[in-house]
Amino acid sequence: GALGGLGLWLWRRQAVMVASEEDEEEKELRQRFMAPPVSGLQELRRRRRELRSRMELLIMETQAEVCRALAALDPGAAFAVDTWERKEGGGGVSCVLQDGEVFEKAGVNVSVVFGQLSEDAARQMRSRGKSLKAKDGKLPFCAMGVSSVIHPKNPHVPTMHFNYRYFEIEEADGTKQWWFGGGTDLTPTYLNEEDAVHFHKTLKEACDKHDLKLYPKYKKWCDDYFFIKHRGERRGIGGIFFDDVDSPSKEEVFQFVKSCAKAVVPCYIPIVKRHCHDSFTPEEKLWQQLRRGRYVEFNLVYDRGTKFGLLTPGSRIESILMSLPLTARWEYMHTPPESSKEAEILEVLRNPKDWV
Amino acid sequence: GALGGLGLWLWRRQAVMVASEEDEEEKELRQRFMAPPVSGLQELRRRRRELRSRMELLIMETQAEVCRALAALDPGAAFAVDTWERKEGGGGVSCVLQDGEVFEKAGVNVSVVFGQLSEDAARQMRSRGKSLKAKDGKLPFCAMGVSSVIHPKNPHVPTMHFNYRYFEIEEADGTKQWWFGGGTDLTPTYLNEEDAVHFHKTLKEACDKHDLKLYPKYKKWCDDYFFIKHRGERRGIGGIFFDDVDSPSKEEVFQFVKSCAKAVVPCYIPIVKRHCHDSFTPEEKLWQQLRRGRYVEFNLVYDRGTKFGLLTPGSRIESILMSLPLTARWEYMHTPPESSKEAEILEVLRNPKDWV
Repeated sequence: GALGGLGLWLWRRQAVMVASEEDEEEKELRQRFMAPPVSGLQELRRRRRELRSRMELLIMETQAEVCRALAALDPGAAFAVDTWERKEGGGGVSCVLQDGEVFEKAGVNVSVVFGQLSEDAARQMRSRGKSLKAKDGKLPFCAMGVSSVIHPKNPHVPTMHFNYRYFEIEEADGTKQWWFGGGTDLTPTYLNEEDAVHFHKTLKEACDKHDLKLYPKYKKWCDDYFFIKHRGERRGIGGIFFDDVDSPSKEEVFQFVKSCAKAVVPCYIPIVKRHCHDSFTPEEKLWQQLRRGRYVEFNLVYDRGTKFGLLTPGSRIESILMSLPLTARWEYMHTPPESSKEAEILEVLRNPKDWV
Repeated sequence: GALGGLGLWLWRRQAVMVASEEDEEEKELRQRFMAPPVSGLQELRRRRRELRSRMELLIMETQAEVCRALAALDPGAAFAVDTWERKEGGGGVSCVLQDGEVFEKAGVNVSVVFGQLSEDAARQMRSRGKSLKAKDGKLPFCAMGVSSVIHPKNPHVPTMHFNYRYFEIEEADGTKQWWFGGGTDLTPTYLNEEDAVHFHKTLKEACDKHDLKLYPKYKKWCDDYFFIKHRGERRGIGGIFFDDVDSPSKEEVFQFVKSCAKAVVPCYIPIVKRHCHDSFTPEEKLWQQLRRGRYVEFNLVYDRGTKFGLLTPGSRIESILMSLPLTARWEYMHTPPESSKEAEILEVLRNPKDWV
């Protein structure tokens, strides 16, 4: 509707302009993505061996895969596609489905931004706070990623979040620093052990293909990261999370990130299918809304990505705050009764469990 | 109900224990407050000339005045009164009315806390960041205040916030630093010029009794403080705000703060009365919910008091987050049509006006 209009991306015109032998490839790419990649297809094809290009294709493919899998479960609704530009360099593609039958709000955002960073901003970007040497106070950088939060309507379908990102910064002497970050995590309103095990098992399998140490390490990192300190609760039942990863090699980390990105749909979609027609009570919906409130608290008070985004000049606020639920609720002193289903999930949020 | 139970403050027992000549005073004080003051009545009476005691009585009286004025407008609902203690020193009284006929959520909180601060924490408390010299790394401090947020149900009744507070810190050489802070501000869903003028005029009159420079200065400070930077919007149509005020004298600032506190009821209650029975459409309710979302964004991302509270060990989270609305909403890319009532208030939030 009104939103889709903003995303009219002149695709047809671009397709007309390219040589006829490229038509087939164009057509294929159009099927692969929700919108043309920020860097342009020709540019990506020209530098196809560079990791930046391969990562941009991966995040665009992941966006399309996830959007299509979600849209297939919510036939009455459709993703609005917005392409946007960043004045300072780069842009993005935001896909949002709002107020559907199955999903209250589902957003999948790709951003590919570049430009110059101050030494201070660059240090803040790296979670380990490594300092970088700038030429004339400026560091050329490139940051790209796909990020998504899916808030379903039914309180028996959990909220899911994932994000995979890549950074490059060029120091004064020309050396390039690079790193990857990302993760996938689940936030149920009610605990369902079978779902929790399926979710974590799928992530573990993706990790185990690369190194058996990854899943336990990144599972713990996830539990530590998504901690709402003032509540003494985690945001959800976790998954995996990692940041500032630059070893063993660029190629190996990319392959690992690719496996994680490919695991998003098999992690989550079976859980949505299993529960999206479950019946629920008004009390269950209310508990979901209170948990949505905690989600907002985490994202606005603690999430590094959100905070960094809100403080970065030229960042697209609507794409950053897409992660917030459509609706949320805060009740003073709400405490679920002992041994209730509500107390059961709280216990797990306070004391994370191992699921596999 | 369930909440009131937590606030059972053994008032009767205390009343029995005091000498009979004090009975009349006890009775009077019981009528003046929602619960006994944190420091105890006898203690406050003993040091009645100290500013700390007078301020504690003022914030307790303000709490009771406001709660009674609100409760009178929402006869079906009642304030739950919780008294709480802070392990590290002090405590508070939280009064909350939730899901009434007129008010969605109305909270009025008093806290009186003391103990030891690190030099770092003390510096953060003063908005001007003045550094203080500690003995053995610790600074004895006392902080007290009344703070309140009133979220009405009807979208034609604005949200109101006020907060008046007093700090004392003792430096290594025994000198006491002290300062006051506070303010009262209004957040309407729709603009009503008559209400805006009444609100600001009442505040201006309270300020003008003390110094004609105060209202213009603190009106601007309010517009600057309640700024949601990432939206380019103010939270509401302002009022007054001041922080770290320690001149001309303790007595004069206290008298000014007292005038402001006494202005809360005449500022706001006539506006509630005028509009609480106005009819409204589902679209107007939706716009209110979106504005509630912005309120949450300001409080969780920018508000110094909330951030300081969430980071302070031993602070009472439920009393700090009492300021959040019962419900809020975030829609991706919501933009009201030009020349609509929604666009009218946005214009004022983007470009603050002078109302008196």
